[in-house]
Order: sequence, then C-alpha cells, then structure tokens
Amino acid sequence: MHYFKENLKLFEKHLEEYKKKLHLKEPPELYKPESYILSLGGKRVRPLLALMACELFKKQPKLALNSAMCVELFHNFSLIHDDILDAAPLRRNKKTVHEKWNTNIAILSGDVMLVKAFEILQTYSDSEFKKLIFVFSDTAIKVCEGQQMDMNFETRKRVKVEEYIQMITYKTAVLLGCSLQMGAINAGASTGDQKNLYEFGKHIGIAFQLLDDLLDAFADDPQKFGKQVGGDIISNKKTFLLLKAIEISNAKQHHKIKSLLELKIEKAKEKVSGMLEVFNELNVKELCKQEADKHTKLALDYLFKVKADAERKNELQLFAIHLLNRTV
Amino acid sequence: MHYFKENLKLFEKHLEEYKKKLHLKEPPELYKPESYILSLGGKRVRPLLALMACELFKKQPKLALNSAMCVELFHNFSLIHDDILDAAPLRRNKKTVHEKWNTNIAILSGDVMLVKAFEILQTYSDSEFKKLIFVFSDTAIKVCEGQQMDMNFETRKRVKVEEYIQMITYKTAVLLGCSLQMGAINAGASTGDQKNLYEFGKHIGIAFQLLDDLLDAFADDPQKFGKQVGGDIISNKKTFLLLKAIEISNAKQHHKIKSLLELKIEKAKEKVSGMLEVFNELNVKELCKQEADKHTKLALDYLFKVKADAERKNELQLFAIHLLNRTV
Repeated sequence: MHYFKENLKLFEKHLEEYKKKLHLKEPPELYKPESYILSLGGKRVRPLLALMACELFKKQPKLALNSAMCVELFHNFSLIHDDILDAAPLRRNKKTVHEKWNTNIAILSGDVMLVKAFEILQTYSDSEFKKLIFVFSDTAIKVCEGQQMDMNFETRKRVKVEEYIQMITYKTAVLLGCSLQMGAINAGASTGDQKNLYEFGKHIGIAFQLLDDLLDAFADDPQKFGKQVGGDIISNKKTFLLLKAIEISNAKQHHKIKSLLELKIEKAKEKVSGMLEVFNELNVKELCKQEADKHTKLALDYLFKVKADAERKNELQLFAIHLLNRTV
Repeated sequence: MHYFKENLKLFEKHLEEYKKKLHLKEPPELYKPESYILSLGGKRVRPLLALMACELFKKQPKLALNSAMCVELFHNFSLIHDDILDAAPLRRNKKTVHEKWNTNIAILSGDVMLVKAFEILQTYSDSEFKKLIFVFSDTAIKVCEGQQMDMNFETRKRVKVEEYIQMITYKTAVLLGCSLQMGAINAGASTGDQKNLYEFGKHIGIAFQLLDDLLDAFADDPQKFGKQVGGDIISNKKTFLLLKAIEISNAKQHHKIKSLLELKIEKAKEKVSGMLEVFNELNVKELCKQEADKHTKLALDYLFKVKADAERKNELQLFAIHLLNRTV
C-alpha cells in the first residue's frame, strides 16, 4: 500500500494549500463553510482514486492533483446540499453546514463549490480540459439524478431491487468511476483503458454501498461502523435488504414486514429485532453479500482488462479491497 | 431593432427544442422544475446579448446559441436558488419552484441546471470551450459572492454606497458582461474586443440595477413596473437611494430615516411616504440617476472602443437603451 499513503500525503498537502487561499476570500460567509467541510476529514477516496489511476500509467500522480480536487470539491458540495435535503444535524460528529450557519449559507456555499469544481480544472490543456469536463459533468448530472431517485423512493410504495441498484449507481458509484477516469485522462491513457477504469470504480462503488447497507443492519462493532446500527431499519429506508426481503417474502412474511414498517419510533428496538428476524429467515444478508461479490468480481474483471503494469494494478485492487473490507 | 427580434426568435426556437428533450428525462421531479422556470418567460436579455455580440463581428448568431443557453440556464438556476433564499412565493406572478414543489426539489433541480450550464458548452471546439468556461466560471463565482454580500447587507448596520455598487456589480451586472464576452468568443473576436464588450455589459448592468432601485421607489406606472412600488422601502432594503440618503443626511434627517426604518409593517404607507419625503429632500433620486448615467456613459465608451461595424454597434446600443429606458 505504498502508493496509497504517499498519494494521501500528496493530496492533503495540496488541499491545505487550497484551504489557505480560501481564508483570504470574500465574503467569508461564503468560504468559511467550504473550509469547514473540507476540514472534517474523510478517507479522501475519490481524490486517491484519481491520483492512483494516473500513477497506474507510470505518470506522476501530481498531474492529477486538480482532478482530485475537482472530485473532492464536488463530493463535499453534494454533502452540504444532501445534508439540507436530509435535515441531518451531524456529519462526522460535527454540526452540518446548515446547522452551524444556516440553510441559505449552506445552499450558496454549496453552489460556489460546485462552480469551483469546474473552475479548478482550468490548469489542464484545452483538449484534456474538455475530456475531463465531459466525464465530470455527465457524472455530476447522474449524481443529482440519483439523489432525486433516492428522495422519490422515500414516498414510493413499491421500489424494485433493480431500481435501487440504479439509484446507488448514480448517487454514489459513478463518482468513483469518474475519479479514476479523470486520473487516467491526466495520464494520457487510451479511451478503452479510461472506460475500463470507470467501470471498475463504478462496480466497486455499488459493492461498497451494498456492504454499507449490510453493515447498517448487521455490524458487529458499532464503534468501527461509525453510525447507529439499525438506523436504516428504524427510518424505514428502502435498502437492498428490505427491498429484497419484500421481493422474496411469502404472504405471511410480507405481512410481518408491513406491520414492522408501521411501528412508531418508540418501538425502535422491537422494529430492529423484528426486521432482523425476517432478514435472517429470508437469508437476505447472504443475498446482499452475493450481490456485492458479483459487483466486486465485475470490477476486478474490468481492472484486469486495463493495459497497465500488473504490480500497479495490484495497488488499485488492494485499495479497493481495503475499502470494501469492513467487518460485517 | 431588426437583429434583436430575429435573434429572440432564433433563441426561443432553440430553447423550445431544448425543453422538448427535458420531457423525456428521468426522474421527472428533477426536470419538470427546469422546464417550468424556463417557460415563465422573461426578456431573455442574457442570451440576446450573447447572440448580438457574435453578430457584431459579422458571424452568424447561431454560433452563439449554446453560449446563450448556458447563460440562460445559469440565470434560471440562480432564480430558483435565490427564491429559496428570499422565501419568495411568486416569480412573474407564478409560484416559485420551492412553492410549487418543495425546497428539496428546488435545491436539487437548481444544482442540475448549474451543471448543465457547463455541459451545454461542449459543442464548442477545445480551445473555444476553455475560453468560454474561463469567463463563465469566474462570473458564476462572482454571482454567488454578490448574492452572499446582498444577504450580509440585510443584517449589517452600515453599508457604504461603494459596497452596494460592488454587490450589484457581482450579483447582476457581470453576467451581462459575461454573456457578451461569450458571444464575442464564439465569433472569434480579439481579447481586447471581448474585454471591452464585457465592460460594456457590466456597466449597462449596474445602470440597469440603479434604475430598478429608482423605479421601485418612484415608478409612475406600477402596472408597467410589474412590482409593488415602494416594496424596497417597506422591506428596509439597502438600495442606492437609502444608502446615499444616509450618507448625505444631516443629524435631523438621519434621525428621521432611523425612525422610519423602525416602523412596523402595519405602517407601511406612512413609511413609504415618509421615506420618499426624505429622498426628495436630499435629492437622491437625481443622484441615483446621475450614477446610472455615469455607468451608461462608461458602457458606451467601452462599446465605442470595440473594433466592429458602427451600424452593428448601434444595434447593441439601441438594445441597451431599450433595456434602460423604463419610465421613472
């Protein structure tokens, strides 16, 4: 995991320099939230993917630093706006931007970060710039579409498992693919290699989200998971587990699921244990794992096709496995 | 005004085609608001400026159609988000997007329009594309900064007239300059001509906003003005008139202004007539007109410097005067 740690250092240094410049910008109400959210930490998965993709083709990862900033800025813009949509009070145990300041400032500081995600790519040559924006704007639109689908699902009665997979693909997975493709563009990789890396990232992203669903229900170690175990069940979130359970349940099980969904917040404990019982009965934990494995396998197939050094591809593969490998 | 009407037709047709494609897009919750706000009408000032700037250099205006769409998409994105910030129920006598749908949908459909404003420029060549995004992203950032300044002014005790001019420059005027510069880029105009057209549009924009302040207080024909006369006074908006009045008032007048600002909404009529009395006493109507004239003159000086056909420049000048020439 040599490249990964070195690249993280490289990116964090670049980010610090970017943040320093933010302090000088006016009006501060617009730029303090940007500095704040960029300082909340996180694994910097997307920027790392951009740098590693560039390095995969034996180019200096620093060539992809502004692509890395672009995807990190976009990711953080989407966190600010999504937290408004979800009325979330906390993000990484700190106040969300709309809570710390207010909704208006959160909307506007998010907007300016979205514009800056595009602006920061201007250091690249004309033709590279256009290629980068081509994949980035296509991805950014999909992320918005995925977020809207997710919102729609909340009030929809019936959601198919395939629709759910499409939603997480758009909302979460394509940005991982995009990060890799942008790094590959910076390295001057062929269109075929770019596309294969995009698909690699996309399928890793789908697997990641499916495992996140699993962890939310079945995490052994809530501390490590970092969120409340059973949170999705309590909020009736239409995850893979719930949708699959509904799909394969018999009439009696279906009735039980429906009654559990109607339980009020006071009966959260009963709801969680009841739902886990149904999930276990229907073996959806295993089915979810299988689905995640399917996408991990697909991802690795795409990585295999990329024409690059086996050793360097191995670095990317290790990083992906590191991402996916949280205790279930 | 031949070019202006022809160009309006050209743009409206292009917009209709764009809107037709929106109907096919999923999820509809994300794209219906876009179609809705683009259908509310408006003078299409920004797209017209882009087309006219292109034509100024004897190039077909259709070359600038996607630049025109870019600035119109951006303008409408900013309307959707600004209406949330202002909690405005109506826009052009129709429900605002957050009222017709909800705030979440308004945030997200605005976000996607902002991304699409960038995306739509991809029809241009690599080098043109980068030049366009350079001026557009710089402008988009300024518009956000101007909006934040405007919000800050609401709660700030003291705002200088110059700060107000900077705010309207950023919030309103630079987008007019940007529209013209983008059209000039599409025509292959020199950097000097591009910059002069940008400054022309910017100063026309400042003059326009100053005259809008004037009309809000002094419009003879409320029907024609389209907004409630005295609205700014009732809401204590820090316009040029109020800020100038505070700046040049003596102690007694200053005291009167302060008392008027404290009058509650029930005494709106008294507030408006009292404030107009002070404005008249201090002659700020005339001072505001002079300031607008100064910027109109500056604008025309910049237009004069542009190396293009006098007759075609005249078209742009007529269009600018048409914009500014509303009855005060």
